[in-house]
Amino acid sequence: MYLTQALHRNVQQHPDAPCTIFGARVRSHTESMDRVARLAAGLQGLGVARGDRVAILALNSDYYHEFLCAVPWADAVFVPINTRWSAAEIAYSLQEAEVHVLFVDDSHLGLVLELRQRCPGLESIVFVGEGAAPEGLVGFNALVDTHDPVPDAQRRGDEIAALFYTGGTTGTPKGVMLSHRNLLTSALGTLAYDFLPHGGRLLHAAPMFHLADLAAWVAQSALGGSHVIVVGFEPGAVLQAIAEHKVEAALLVPTMIQMLVDDPRVGDHDLRSLTHLIYGASPISEAVLARARKVFGTARFTQLYGMTEISPVATVLPDKCHDDPRLRRSAGIAAPHSLVKIVDPMGQEVERGVVGEICVSGDHVMLGYWKKPEETAAAVRDGWMHTGDGGYMDGQGFVFIADRIKDMIITGGENVYSVEVENVVAEHPAVASCAVIGVPDEEWGERVHAVVVLVPGAELTRDELRAHCRAEIAAYKCPRTLEIVPALPLSGAGKILKRELRRQHQEDGA
Amino acid sequence: MYLTQALHRNVQQHPDAPCTIFGARVRSHTESMDRVARLAAGLQGLGVARGDRVAILALNSDYYHEFLCAVPWADAVFVPINTRWSAAEIAYSLQEAEVHVLFVDDSHLGLVLELRQRCPGLESIVFVGEGAAPEGLVGFNALVDTHDPVPDAQRRGDEIAALFYTGGTTGTPKGVMLSHRNLLTSALGTLAYDFLPHGGRLLHAAPMFHLADLAAWVAQSALGGSHVIVVGFEPGAVLQAIAEHKVEAALLVPTMIQMLVDDPRVGDHDLRSLTHLIYGASPISEAVLARARKVFGTARFTQLYGMTEISPVATVLPDKCHDDPRLRRSAGIAAPHSLVKIVDPMGQEVERGVVGEICVSGDHVMLGYWKKPEETAAAVRDGWMHTGDGGYMDGQGFVFIADRIKDMIITGGENVYSVEVENVVAEHPAVASCAVIGVPDEEWGERVHAVVVLVPGAELTRDELRAHCRAEIAAYKCPRTLEIVPALPLSGAGKILKRELRRQHQEDGA
Repeated sequence: MYLTQALHRNVQQHPDAPCTIFGARVRSHTESMDRVARLAAGLQGLGVARGDRVAILALNSDYYHEFLCAVPWADAVFVPINTRWSAAEIAYSLQEAEVHVLFVDDSHLGLVLELRQRCPGLESIVFVGEGAAPEGLVGFNALVDTHDPVPDAQRRGDEIAALFYTGGTTGTPKGVMLSHRNLLTSALGTLAYDFLPHGGRLLHAAPMFHLADLAAWVAQSALGGSHVIVVGFEPGAVLQAIAEHKVEAALLVPTMIQMLVDDPRVGDHDLRSLTHLIYGASPISEAVLARARKVFGTARFTQLYGMTEISPVATVLPDKCHDDPRLRRSAGIAAPHSLVKIVDPMGQEVERGVVGEICVSGDHVMLGYWKKPEETAAAVRDGWMHTGDGGYMDGQGFVFIADRIKDMIITGGENVYSVEVENVVAEHPAVASCAVIGVPDEEWGERVHAVVVLVPGAELTRDELRAHCRAEIAAYKCPRTLEIVPALPLSGAGKILKRELRRQHQEDGA
Repeated sequence: MYLTQALHRNVQQHPDAPCTIFGARVRSHTESMDRVARLAAGLQGLGVARGDRVAILALNSDYYHEFLCAVPWADAVFVPINTRWSAAEIAYSLQEAEVHVLFVDDSHLGLVLELRQRCPGLESIVFVGEGAAPEGLVGFNALVDTHDPVPDAQRRGDEIAALFYTGGTTGTPKGVMLSHRNLLTSALGTLAYDFLPHGGRLLHAAPMFHLADLAAWVAQSALGGSHVIVVGFEPGAVLQAIAEHKVEAALLVPTMIQMLVDDPRVGDHDLRSLTHLIYGASPISEAVLARARKVFGTARFTQLYGMTEISPVATVLPDKCHDDPRLRRSAGIAAPHSLVKIVDPMGQEVERGVVGEICVSGDHVMLGYWKKPEETAAAVRDGWMHTGDGGYMDGQGFVFIADRIKDMIITGGENVYSVEVENVVAEHPAVASCAVIGVPDEEWGERVHAVVVLVPGAELTRDELRAHCRAEIAAYKCPRTLEIVPALPLSGAGKILKRELRRQHQEDGA
């Protein structure tokens, strides 16, 4: 199994069909593979050798697709970098991964000087963009145009395909090593659920550096479809791209879905081409799901749950389960390539219905953390990835995510799972989006604290919110304090950065 | 990846749902896995150690399913034996595979004495059936009942899962070594085509010893469905099983489909539960396909093309392609786990539309032939399995099978692909089934010879047949001689044994 296998098959089966659509620029599978083979030659010309890491710091584009193909074609390892990270964080990962060649687009040129200073090992910087490259940088198109195609190295199997640096939301960055087999096992196992249309058009609006989108890219490539790419998530651009390019599938995180369905322009576009809507990376509130079902009436919804370390899919919630009020709170059942179990702190499997740590095994479990054998051994025990997510499993194997174990709120000795509270808070008509966290409290140890973005023009008091919640959940779970903010801090992948929210309160308290 | 992974997931997700349905006997996933874990203990009690080969010579049953699960659970390798083979052929494979433990059912007890004499290494014979075991044999249920469950050995990945002896139709038997990864790669890659319903009921009517059915068993297990098992293919029993057990999916070879749709009892049964009909192992004539479309109106048809050595699926022809008169003659396009190319005798890829040898690569290509490194090296070159099948590929990657390379007829210097002729012959209203072969001919080198089974009560002359064919294909392709027979010789998998037909003519001529 190897990632570039799909390129050969797609040229064989759909030579003239669009491989990438980026604005007005459409490249067929044949054109795209030719550029990939030339870019791979260019990489080798820059000194990239077997197993070297090559990084990219860029917004979405068709160049990003070509980069992701050319690096394994040249027998190397791609390192997609989180565009929201600071120069210090980026430099840390480039240094640790010993990156010599970095791809950078216009939006990130401002970081180049600092990165060069912090990373003396950085030998070449490739400019991902149109026109002439800035001084000292190599042009992407120049690399393509000035090299003859080289044969596919067919990097494969258990060899490292990618390093994904994670930790933006959870601590020190760690480089997750994923093999070709890891990524393709997750893709093929998940495709058994018909989560993408064969030969259809998939929209890349979520950042391509994140494995949520990149995993959809792997699966879409395996199926021979087209990639419709927008620079990044902006509701108006996404709605327009769906309508203009007759997009059939989109992978979005719940925050993005909410922004789309609440956008005032949503009614201006014909969205009926969309047959497959995939969401994941974080749970979706029932209120948002209900609104999304109305706006995307032709789409089957598939929830995928996983994490970078498992390449990334563990469980799937198929469309039909969304009609069941209980099941639609679930993250679904283990996919055909995956085993899932819930364990107690001693590593013993717990009874159904009891919350514990979600563990996953299969060929999709990462090779390990780059240069971090101890962290790897702590995370992967006997082949089981310990996800750090809390959850329980029902009698039919449906997994219900309680919370990140470290996000669990302990208030007055009771465990409170913030997702449960967030689901209730989100149902209040005045609430556009919300996060529930634990903040230090002298009386309760931690207290349940709601951070809320209001629907424009709406108002909400603490007591109104408590009364609303009290009708649904136990008193100790209801928010004791309410904070109204203009926007929630989001990670590059659209996850709410609870660490950021908590940090503010710890600083306030200090 | 390992075959028994599915058992754990299915007990987790569908503990009380039927795993096997065999006549009136229904066993849930929980019961079935418990029996498997006990049978595995029984195998170990018989001395079966890591990597040992354990063979089975039996018609289909739920015991067969338990055997296929228990052998890898016990860290061993299963060897399913073709029930049509002679004692000499069976003994050859048992000896070569160094089998110490053999499972035999009632139908094959008559072979036991001879097999014991020919195979001195055979230590234990397990009786697959009800009631007390005959003297000198161990009872299947006794093994299960007298052992406590052992943990799953989780035999996996590149370790050998199975030895399939092939060659019944093509020469000396060779043991095809397939790994767990081989079998699961083909299953997962093919499942992207939705060829089985999730959690549905699959009928096993084709022999379970053959990889066509066994591959469907792997995929069905991965999806968590139920196995409805009948002893073997008998049209009346199959029609009744579909109706009685509300069977949703069936894998059949074209010969079986033809016998079903032509069976006078076909109208007596409600076949509307059938949503997925999978066929393969040999091409289907257009005439049979058309009749099958009428009888199984609710079913989506999926053709799978492959062979034992590629675990077994290379290409898939999805349902929608059956509506296109040109595409429905095709074997489909390379599946997401598979690469396919057509090469000339020098190994160079040929132009689209040119006939050559079909070659396949991917993680589904066999580990090799057991103890036959030279034959392995000849068949698998640079990772490409040379299938021995002739065919060409069109501009969209659709593969059209011309013929077994050795089945090609050379008449008057022209190449004739028998499938093409068979498709035309089969369209004649008097023809129930047919085979076209080359027979020695003084004038033409070989001449095109049709062997035909007539529709009951119909008549057909050579000249009528030639006139019918001449309207469709070139004169040199039309059968020069016609032979009417009561039945065609079939292999255990339902393939027409052309070798048998040819041998008769060589003997006649000698």
